[in-house]
Amino acid sequence: MNAKTPKESLTILTDLVLPGETNYLDNLFGGELLARMDRACSITARRHSRRIVVTASVNHVAFNKSVPVGSVLTVEAKVSRAFKSSMEIYVDVWIEDRESGNRTKVNEGIYTFVAVDDTGTPVPVPPINPETDLEKERFEGALRRKQLSLILANKLDPKDANALRALFKD
Amino acid sequence: MNAKTPKESLTILTDLVLPGETNYLDNLFGGELLARMDRACSITARRHSRRIVVTASVNHVAFNKSVPVGSVLTVEAKVSRAFKSSMEIYVDVWIEDRESGNRTKVNEGIYTFVAVDDTGTPVPVPPINPETDLEKERFEGALRRKQLSLILANKLDPKDANALRALFKD
Amino acid sequence: MNAKTPKESLTILTDLVLPGETNYLDNLFGGELLARMDRACSITARRHSRRIVVTASVNHVAFNKSVPVGSVLTVEAKVSRAFKSSMEIYVDVWIEDRESGNRTKVNEGIYTFVAVDDTGTPVPVPPINPETDLEKERFEGALRRKQLSLILANKLDPKDANALRALFKD
Amino acid sequence: MNAKTPKESLTILTDLVLPGETNYLDNLFGGELLARMDRACSITARRHSRRIVVTASVNHVAFNKSVPVGSVLTVEAKVSRAFKSSMEIYVDVWIEDRESGNRTKVNEGIYTFVAVDDTGTPVPVPPINPETDLEKERFEGALRRKQLSLILANKLDPKDANALRALFKD
Amino acid sequence: MNAKTPKESLTILTDLVLPGETNYLDNLFGGELLARMDRACSITARRHSRRIVVTASVNHVAFNKSVPVGSVLTVEAKVSRAFKSSMEIYVDVWIEDRESGNRTKVNEGIYTFVAVDDTGTPVPVPPINPETDLEKERFEGALRRKQLSLILANKLDPKDANALRALFKD
Amino acid sequence: MNAKTPKESLTILTDLVLPGETNYLDNLFGGELLARMDRACSITARRHSRRIVVTASVNHVAFNKSVPVGSVLTVEAKVSRAFKSSMEIYVDVWIEDRESGNRTKVNEGIYTFVAVDDTGTPVPVPPINPETDLEKERFEGALRRKQLSLILANKLDPKDANALRALFKD
Repeated sequence: MNAKTPKESLTILTDLVLPGETNYLDNLFGGELLARMDRACSITARRHSRRIVVTASVNHVAFNKSVPVGSVLTVEAKVSRAFKSSMEIYVDVWIEDRESGNRTKVNEGIYTFVAVDDTGTPVPVPPINPETDLEKERFEGALRRKQLSLILANKLDPKDANALRALFKD
Repeated sequence: MNAKTPKESLTILTDLVLPGETNYLDNLFGGELLARMDRACSITARRHSRRIVVTASVNHVAFNKSVPVGSVLTVEAKVSRAFKSSMEIYVDVWIEDRESGNRTKVNEGIYTFVAVDDTGTPVPVPPINPETDLEKERFEGALRRKQLSLILANKLDPKDANALRALFKD
Repeated sequence: MNAKTPKESLTILTDLVLPGETNYLDNLFGGELLARMDRACSITARRHSRRIVVTASVNHVAFNKSVPVGSVLTVEAKVSRAFKSSMEIYVDVWIEDRESGNRTKVNEGIYTFVAVDDTGTPVPVPPINPETDLEKERFEGALRRKQLSLILANKLDPKDANALRALFKD
Repeated sequence: MNAKTPKESLTILTDLVLPGETNYLDNLFGGELLARMDRACSITARRHSRRIVVTASVNHVAFNKSVPVGSVLTVEAKVSRAFKSSMEIYVDVWIEDRESGNRTKVNEGIYTFVAVDDTGTPVPVPPINPETDLEKERFEGALRRKQLSLILANKLDPKDANALRALFKD
Repeated sequence: MNAKTPKESLTILTDLVLPGETNYLDNLFGGELLARMDRACSITARRHSRRIVVTASVNHVAFNKSVPVGSVLTVEAKVSRAFKSSMEIYVDVWIEDRESGNRTKVNEGIYTFVAVDDTGTPVPVPPINPETDLEKERFEGALRRKQLSLILANKLDPKDANALRALFKD
Repeated sequence: MNAKTPKESLTILTDLVLPGETNYLDNLFGGELLARMDRACSITARRHSRRIVVTASVNHVAFNKSVPVGSVLTVEAKVSRAFKSSMEIYVDVWIEDRESGNRTKVNEGIYTFVAVDDTGTPVPVPPINPETDLEKERFEGALRRKQLSLILANKLDPKDANALRALFKD
């Protein structure tokens, strides 16, 4: 399969934050934001693989800033690395100031999806070809994150996690 | 106020069609699609005016093709013309084929929004500067549509609707 | 097929406006109102035709007044004119004052539905027989609105739009 | 306060049953139907009292027939009896056959609402004047049901429940 | 079938009250609470019978205290009595104070479910063996409530309602 | 502050999976499951701290098995470790077979919450005292996970991550 660029499967989900989606402090509820991010990431994974995709894991989501009701929220999802049949998707979330138009980063997350056929069996996905500096940096980090996941799930011996061990070398 | 281009306030809302949003034929419910289009248009109007905006009217929405559950639906909203304090927003809706990646137009609509201050009083908005051929064509049509609306609401005498009368000249 | 009266397929949808349906000004969200109107109109179209019906277009919806959370909202939908297999539905929306019981018109809209069989093929619908003055006035206007729709969709030459041209005659 | 008739505060809520409101047998979920009935009853109680109203109890709801997805469901709520500051509301639920237009009763329920002022203190409501035979029958039954409620809540000694004791007399 | 204890099918549903579920006084909407209670009761009925279950009736729900937005709400449902193929389920609802952790009873209700096979035909359910004093008291009351329901539905002559008549004996 | 046990703030959220919450394969949508888990975890964090709590991050959620519509889903959340003002919450998710009653683990996740006062300033939380073997194992792992999070966020030099470095020692 030919490699694709992250830009080819970029997904943009811009939508309002409505009162029915907020917590008791009138900010977007964490769970609702996780759901929006999951939907955007799944579209990116589907666009990259052109296959049915299922969420395999949420590797890390950091909530840096609360999102008040009435915000315009933009969720942008890109493939950071493709493995055999799984894809790591990096998702960035922004709100924008109505008067100045300035954007503020509120959240970012890392999701993993697997491409499957109609019977649910994993199928291969195209490699990814990172272009920008940020895409390259996230591509590099993806291997370390995958090894970490495997270690945390007791599926990889830390001794064999080469990319990760390099971090801890004296 | 300086004119802006349609591109500057373009809003893209890409999202899945979930089972809870469908009618009994397992297609996206018309009302739910109208709601998504309204949200995307309101963000465009807000980005163009940098003001609070309220829906004034839905001028025309044509449903050309049904949208099956599980579709990736892309709603794109752009300012087609700015009047004194109102903006006509043109919204195009697409689905895409999972295997080929091809996009199919399913729907388009025309909404009008008014910019207001905190007390609900209409305030001026920047003029629009159409760039592409399609943007220019929609800009031209907007005046005729505005006159039509006013006639239908009995707020304009057909005799004074110059842009519209030109259509019917022999 | 025998003609029916608008009264025979009148649909009344009275419901509360709940906090989860409001925008950031605590008024009913425009998109949610469009969805409620669409559901009421589709029931009227179904009752008139006794067929499966699908939304063909929203021809005009004017938002005259905002609808605060907690309102009792009444949506009333009636067939204004039946064509071969399509029906124009007129929908009026009211809120009522809790203390006085007085009703205020907040919105009206015009939707078009098409009756179809199980394969999605359009099927004929009964003619409509308007009774009240308002029903007759809306019946008359429906033909002009249909011609307008066709012109806007480039499916009718303005020169052939007789009902409409009459409006612009000197 | 002058008595009112049940007709004056009749509430009709006709709406579709959408897929997002169904259980795993593709019928309207019991809880969702209870919620629709509660909303219709609360509007009737508000119209009769012209006051803020709160649900006091659901006295009886019988589910006779399941309601398939895609149904047109009509909920009709009427005051059956007014006490000092509470109102018993009787609610009937119907579906209609698309092809024949015939209505089938699927459900009925009895709710009690209390009228309150801004501080939540109960306030008096107008008496009700039943007109039809069914309204009179339900008016008579309401006192027995109220006594039953009080007995079940240990707020009334069965020996003092005169209307109810009459039922069990030999 | 062997008898089971209420504890074996106890269902606990602890969840937040979100803004989208509230009425215009910012309290949990009565209808939404009825729906949550119905879901918890249906799980208890399913656990006791290990069958498909459908709501047969809501016999009594008393709303004692309003539930403000942001509350932690706990719904606990237990079988109070099993009849041939129906089960009476008692459901208690609590909120808890954030600072002290104290629980306050806000609501209780009685639902009846019927166990059915795939064709919707009622099937037998195991008997229940009440253990605590409260379980025994509710078990005793269930027969009287069942007779009341039958009388109210005109399916039982009050003269034959032995358990109930005992209440009214002088 | 006195230490508490995980049992004291255990939260159980048992609820049905309804059709409105599913993806196009009729399984519970990943995003909806993330939202349910977030709500259960936030209640546990609130019960442990008796403070307002906000989601700080989702550290890891693994989707092992899909959850079909109609499932009874049980989400159980427990504090695994308390730091100065943050709490790591471990959440386990189960479905149960209707006929046998057997439970199957479908998912587990790790969330971090921060306790704040009314101004949003972090406040101290009580220590946790793990009791069971599983609670102790998760307590031990929490420190390594916290160091990992800090490294991934570039807030900790890997050289200073003692608990983590121990994993990679030869």
